[in-house]
Amino acid sequence: MSFIENLNWRYATKKFDITRKVSDADLEKILEAIRLTPTSFGLQPYYVYVVTNQDTKDKIQAAAWNQPQVGTSSHLLVFTARTDLADNKEEFFSLLSGGNSEIRSQLKGYEDMVDGFVAGKPTPESVLPWSAKQAYIAQGFALAAAAELQIDSCAMEGFDPVAVGEILGLPEVEKAVVMLPIGYRDASENPRPKVRFSREHLFAEVK
Amino acid sequence: MSFIENLNWRYATKKFDITRKVSDADLEKILEAIRLTPTSFGLQPYYVYVVTNQDTKDKIQAAAWNQPQVGTSSHLLVFTARTDLADNKEEFFSLLSGGNSEIRSQLKGYEDMVDGFVAGKPTPESVLPWSAKQAYIAQGFALAAAAELQIDSCAMEGFDPVAVGEILGLPEVEKAVVMLPIGYRDASENPRPKVRFSREHLFAEVK
Repeated sequence: MSFIENLNWRYATKKFDITRKVSDADLEKILEAIRLTPTSFGLQPYYVYVVTNQDTKDKIQAAAWNQPQVGTSSHLLVFTARTDLADNKEEFFSLLSGGNSEIRSQLKGYEDMVDGFVAGKPTPESVLPWSAKQAYIAQGFALAAAAELQIDSCAMEGFDPVAVGEILGLPEVEKAVVMLPIGYRDASENPRPKVRFSREHLFAEVK
Repeated sequence: MSFIENLNWRYATKKFDITRKVSDADLEKILEAIRLTPTSFGLQPYYVYVVTNQDTKDKIQAAAWNQPQVGTSSHLLVFTARTDLADNKEEFFSLLSGGNSEIRSQLKGYEDMVDGFVAGKPTPESVLPWSAKQAYIAQGFALAAAAELQIDSCAMEGFDPVAVGEILGLPEVEKAVVMLPIGYRDASENPRPKVRFSREHLFAEVK
C-alpha cells in the first residue's frame, strides 16, 4: 500500500537543501490535494499562503523559535483559519448554486442547516476552533501529497501566530494556525527512527 | 498522481451497503495510517474506537441526527481527543526512551521543551482544542487511506459528543471529537458533483 509506505518514508524535516526547489508541477499537485480536502459542510474555512520570498521566510523563521526548516524550505505553506463564517457560508452557497437563484432555492434545506450552524457561532472566537480543525485536515493532506511526490515537509505549530499574521499582512478575520515548509532534506539530516504508540495503545474495538 | 485520483473518487457517503464489510486486512491498513499520523511533538493525543457492534452503532446514530451512514457502516471509527496531557507526555517519553533512564536523560532538552508546553495547558479545557486538532489530522489520514483502498467514508462532526461519550463509556479525560464511518456505498447512492473553491480563492503567493 503506497500511502503507508509514503507515511513511513516521511519524517519531520528540520533542515532542507536550500539549493533544491520544488517544481511548479509538483507544487500544483500539493495545492490540488489541499483544494480537494473534505471539510465540515464543504465550507473550506481557510486560506493558504505559499511563501517563496526569502526575506519573508526569514522573518517568519524569526517568529518561529528560529527553526531552520522555515528559512531553508523551498516553499513555506502557511494555513490561515477564517473567522468570517457568515461570509464564508455565503461564498460557498454562491459557488454551489453557480449564482442561480432557482438552484439555490433547491438547496434551501441544506442552506437552512448551515445557517443554523453559523448562528451557533456568532463570534470570531467561537468560529476559530472549528475552522482551525478544518485547516489541520488540509495540512495533513498537503503533507501526504508531498510524501507521495518524495517531497519532504515538517508540520509546525511552534510559531507566534500574531507575528506571522503581521508579516503576511493578514486581515483581522484570518489567523495563522499551522505551517508546512516543504522541500528536499539537507544531506546533513539524520532523522531519528519513527516512534509511534502501539496499535494496542491507540485502538479499542467495540464488537 | 494516485493520491489526487483517490481524493477525486471519494465523496461523503451518506448510506453504505450494509451487506458489505471491510476486510480485516484493509481495516489494519487504515489503522496503520492513523498510527503513522504526524502530530504535535509526536504526542498522538487521541484514541480511536472501532465500532462494529450494531446495537452500539444504532445508538450512536440516534445521537447523530439519525444520519444513516452511521448505522449502515461496516465499521464506525470514533476519534476521541485526550485531555490528560501530563499523562500523555509521560507515556510518550517512556515509549521514546524504552524505559531506559540513560536514554531519557539524553532527551532532556526535548522533554524540557514539551514540559513547558504541558505547563502552558494546565486544564482539560485548555488541552482539548489542541488535542482535537491532532485527531483531525488522523481522521484525514484514515479517510485518505480508505480512499486508496476504494473504501467509502464520511467524515462527521454532526453528533452529540456527550451522548456518544456515554454510549462508549468514555472516561472523563476523553472527548469524542470526530467520527468516520467506513464501508461500501449503497447502490442507491447518487453523489452530487464535488464542489470546491477555486485555486484563486484558496491560495495566495508571496513571491
